[in-house]
Amino acid sequence: HTSIPGYVYGGLIASIIDCHATGAAAAAAYRAEGREMDSQPSFRYLTASLKVDYLLPTPINVPLEVRATVKEIKGRKVVIQAALSAHSQVTARGEVIAVQVPEHLIPGLQEPHA
Amino acid sequence: HTSIPGYVYGGLIASIIDCHATGAAAAAAYRAEGREMDSQPSFRYLTASLKVDYLLPTPINVPLEVRATVKEIKGRKVVIQAALSAHSQVTARGEVIAVQVPEHLIPGLQEPHA
Repeated sequence: HTSIPGYVYGGLIASIIDCHATGAAAAAAYRAEGREMDSQPSFRYLTASLKVDYLLPTPINVPLEVRATVKEIKGRKVVIQAALSAHSQVTARGEVIAVQVPEHLIPGLQEPHA
Repeated sequence: HTSIPGYVYGGLIASIIDCHATGAAAAAAYRAEGREMDSQPSFRYLTASLKVDYLLPTPINVPLEVRATVKEIKGRKVVIQAALSAHSQVTARGEVIAVQVPEHLIPGLQEPHA
């Protein structure tokens, strides 16, 4: 989780932003449909594109905050912007294009055919 | 390292591309200066920006290949394009802007001052 001593590895920052953004995309979809969070059938979003700008080194071993904002929601596509902060200072910004995929179309989650 | 069973997690793919691209940026700098790889002082590149497009699910437990190409080298900045393949099929493409930072300016690698 580290590359330069004392700082969070950039690949992990990308993972944090990706994970938070796809969750935020699902939350945006529930909200857009006026549904309770986690109600069934669930929304599953996959990442189509991920961009991260590293503004400052991110210190390790301190609480980090990620805030996501819905930039656009259009059909099955949601564009999320995210900011990662340490000590209230933004150290990385991300933009994620997440696409909603029905669970039965996701190969690893597919039910085996009889 | 997985999110959907059978496939590589996208955050890990971002990490693989980031890691390979910053290495390729250093290699490009050695080549541009006509120096032997790994000769001293070493080049250290940090990621300023990382973008990954996920084209297809990337299968897990098979050999993956990452190929990096130098798109641009300009002063301390190198732009690298990378393609990740499984079974000779490109599953993700990345573009990384890497910036060369002298080791003594990287906080975690700094010598303590007397």
